[in-house]
Amino acid sequence: MGKPIKIVVAGPRGRMGKEAVNLVNETPEFELVAVLDRKHNGMLLSEIDGFSNLDVRIYTDVEECFQNVDADVLIDLTVPETGYLHTKTALLHGVRPVVGTTGFTEEEISELRKLAEERDIGCIIAPNFAIGAILMMKFSQMAAKYFNNVEIIELHHDQKLDAPSGTALKTAQMMSNNREKKKQGHPNEKETIRGARGANFEGMRIHSVRLPGLVAHQQVIFGAPGETLTIRHDSYNRASFMTGVKMSVETVMKLNTLVYGLEHILE
Amino acid sequence: MGKPIKIVVAGPRGRMGKEAVNLVNETPEFELVAVLDRKHNGMLLSEIDGFSNLDVRIYTDVEECFQNVDADVLIDLTVPETGYLHTKTALLHGVRPVVGTTGFTEEEISELRKLAEERDIGCIIAPNFAIGAILMMKFSQMAAKYFNNVEIIELHHDQKLDAPSGTALKTAQMMSNNREKKKQGHPNEKETIRGARGANFEGMRIHSVRLPGLVAHQQVIFGAPGETLTIRHDSYNRASFMTGVKMSVETVMKLNTLVYGLEHILE
Amino acid sequence: MGKPIKIVVAGPRGRMGKEAVNLVNETPEFELVAVLDRKHNGMLLSEIDGFSNLDVRIYTDVEECFQNVDADVLIDLTVPETGYLHTKTALLHGVRPVVGTTGFTEEEISELRKLAEERDIGCIIAPNFAIGAILMMKFSQMAAKYFNNVEIIELHHDQKLDAPSGTALKTAQMMSNNREKKKQGHPNEKETIRGARGANFEGMRIHSVRLPGLVAHQQVIFGAPGETLTIRHDSYNRASFMTGVKMSVETVMKLNTLVYGLEHILE
Amino acid sequence: MGKPIKIVVAGPRGRMGKEAVNLVNETPEFELVAVLDRKHNGMLLSEIDGFSNLDVRIYTDVEECFQNVDADVLIDLTVPETGYLHTKTALLHGVRPVVGTTGFTEEEISELRKLAEERDIGCIIAPNFAIGAILMMKFSQMAAKYFNNVEIIELHHDQKLDAPSGTALKTAQMMSNNREKKKQGHPNEKETIRGARGANFEGMRIHSVRLPGLVAHQQVIFGAPGETLTIRHDSYNRASFMTGVKMSVETVMKLNTLVYGLEHILE
Repeated sequence: MGKPIKIVVAGPRGRMGKEAVNLVNETPEFELVAVLDRKHNGMLLSEIDGFSNLDVRIYTDVEECFQNVDADVLIDLTVPETGYLHTKTALLHGVRPVVGTTGFTEEEISELRKLAEERDIGCIIAPNFAIGAILMMKFSQMAAKYFNNVEIIELHHDQKLDAPSGTALKTAQMMSNNREKKKQGHPNEKETIRGARGANFEGMRIHSVRLPGLVAHQQVIFGAPGETLTIRHDSYNRASFMTGVKMSVETVMKLNTLVYGLEHILE
Repeated sequence: MGKPIKIVVAGPRGRMGKEAVNLVNETPEFELVAVLDRKHNGMLLSEIDGFSNLDVRIYTDVEECFQNVDADVLIDLTVPETGYLHTKTALLHGVRPVVGTTGFTEEEISELRKLAEERDIGCIIAPNFAIGAILMMKFSQMAAKYFNNVEIIELHHDQKLDAPSGTALKTAQMMSNNREKKKQGHPNEKETIRGARGANFEGMRIHSVRLPGLVAHQQVIFGAPGETLTIRHDSYNRASFMTGVKMSVETVMKLNTLVYGLEHILE
Repeated sequence: MGKPIKIVVAGPRGRMGKEAVNLVNETPEFELVAVLDRKHNGMLLSEIDGFSNLDVRIYTDVEECFQNVDADVLIDLTVPETGYLHTKTALLHGVRPVVGTTGFTEEEISELRKLAEERDIGCIIAPNFAIGAILMMKFSQMAAKYFNNVEIIELHHDQKLDAPSGTALKTAQMMSNNREKKKQGHPNEKETIRGARGANFEGMRIHSVRLPGLVAHQQVIFGAPGETLTIRHDSYNRASFMTGVKMSVETVMKLNTLVYGLEHILE
Repeated sequence: MGKPIKIVVAGPRGRMGKEAVNLVNETPEFELVAVLDRKHNGMLLSEIDGFSNLDVRIYTDVEECFQNVDADVLIDLTVPETGYLHTKTALLHGVRPVVGTTGFTEEEISELRKLAEERDIGCIIAPNFAIGAILMMKFSQMAAKYFNNVEIIELHHDQKLDAPSGTALKTAQMMSNNREKKKQGHPNEKETIRGARGANFEGMRIHSVRLPGLVAHQQVIFGAPGETLTIRHDSYNRASFMTGVKMSVETVMKLNTLVYGLEHILE
């Protein structure tokens, strides 16, 4: 094993950030060298509730942080505005950012890509770090080329407001590009209770189940004579994002440009 | 093992009847003593295509059959009118009927019950012989007492015309009696594509999936904080009815009244 | 709505106890009147970390608690020795206990039953409060009467040491009583890699899956010609016990004896 | 639509061959121009039981067939020796073979490849035509790169002799190439009944379920903190092979070499 990757985590007290701090702490090849927080400047992380063993310094000013700390990677799990400033500053200091956000504009992403390429270093921006969910979408897209009969069942807790889920819609869109157009079901099929056949997305059907107890689940079922192929993802808790964060940290060390979306670094 | 149960099968060339002939033939405790058919009177079953080894006589007249043949049980898998005549004649001759039909009127059933009780023998009339499906409905009904959040997903081949399926509707009705009323899902939930949340049956939701390759499947999912309970039935082919026919033949020998619906002989 | 049920919770700082405090607090028909803890005597629950809004008195002495507090039900989620003392004292004061434990001896249970019956009040002792899991076992037991081909797949996180799980073994035992004996699979079946066919429990097979991400899941699959029936329970977190605790509190108010095991109060 | 693809089917009376004849017959872009059979030379297919409407000539001699019939593609679903002769003869006459077999030697395949390339035409040899099963294996192989915790559950009817199934073993082998080595489960895990944790294949576990009613099913479950990804294939009947045969016929028209295994023509 070579030298560990030196990491700054931004947003350590948020739910995702806390998981990221734990991830870095538990991974032998990673080393936490500082955290960026909105408050507690100059304190140690160990002085904050819930981080008892981590004698790592807290910075509130990103410029000051990167001037004082020798870091390889920034993991940023804050909000878009703060995240943009952090990402840009990191790149200017030669630190490779791994950023979890959907909030950057296309102009911001272009600018960050230019900065990364000028410095010949990597930068990964990802709306979703759950590798399992990304693979589910990617495999569904691939299978849609061979099976043009497909239905999606997504299942979530009953506090969710919108149906279908964003992931279901994104999956359907990705399949749409590869799928031979078809209105599914029997041409004369009839709903005796309205809604039984689910939401119609270009002939594909999407069904949204909402029950207490459920977390976030989706299955994509393809049918052809004599067989079905099912791809299912179950997300049980936030820890699911950490596999993707870990892989992104490892990958960003080898990149020399900006990548938007984890699907582009999965082969 | 005691003496085998002597059985007449009516409708031996139909799809269900053919399975029943095989069932009787393959069960050591059963003995096929005659068949009732619309044609081929006086011939042997072995002379008909597909029954090469069965030297069993074919009758077209039910009265003649029961006068000449010493039988314990009639398995009738014909159509309602014929089935009614067969069932009545069997009872008058002291032969216990096992009948697969939904087509008898309440008056006919009352009359047949009276005949069975007068002769102190059993008679079973069943719209559905698939024990797995019946248990799925029964368990769902029981669970609905403790979980009032439930959704049904039924999945069938894409040649099916109606949605939801009859079994899904019957399951929902059975649960309705036991379930504390509730409109499920978030009070403010919103379908961004109409139909996503499925068919609404008293607040429960039913989703109908139709894909080539599928046969006949249903799952009933109950949710409560921290857990889900799922009851699923998969029907792959017609053989699934034979477990119920076999159990009915064994049970009808011990009954001294008419039972309508297999759920009443499952404990 | 009548008067709320007045409840004492023992063990409020434990993981289950904390959930129970929340449950009582969030249920309109329930009222938290005191807690029993090993320390903090005389303090208010609101003075303890994590219970900010609950001005409920803490007792360390069970006798003192029931002398001073007018309670209907004790929910005890402590350890067996403490739990036994709490349960006995509650019964002597006419308070109905709901106790989550597997640790009482048969003699202790007999004695507690006698006390409950003398006072004509209910007492519920339950090793498992997850109603979904109990129904899964009960339904499996019922189905085993009709299907003697059955396999269990239980799936847990990869930190679990023992395989098969206790729940899988208990399910198999319960089915064993109802199931016609049979060595399943083909008589000449052959494992080309040892263990492929799983654990053999009286001819039934049990398969234990261990993967990170999983929580606690079990499915029981019954097979017969042409069909399968599957009963599945998914436990996602500890909240799953609370449905059973709630039902037990409601039920214990109507009982006048001791019941051991929630399966006896589910119909 | 251009001119239909003219097809010869070899082995029309076999179970697969019969499905292939139906497939060609029902596909508007395909045209059945002859069949190759072991007997019935010179007769019409319509004179054979089960093919009443097909006035297509039967040949027993492959050389005679291709001299007299103008064909584009040969679909061969016979046995290896016959299949080899058919395939070679077809290639010599410029007819593109689609062959379902695992029985050819490497030398035979090399020779056939050379013949195909000399004539600049395609040839597809496939041990398995079920596209769903092939995609399941391919996706599993891809996912194994990101998830090194994986278990396979394969489920078959109870007449199957060997466990694990050939498909499960092939899937495990394909994942093995991509998967970071790991002995799964807790290091101290313990089987209280031998076999509970299934077959061990390089640390991955394979579980074989055998029940009446089941046909041929497999699920591959990947686990990581907080999430699982499941890929499942259900094969209900032989028709599942026909999607792959159809795609192969279309693809072989565009190839100018031999391809072994459908996974190489799926993208």
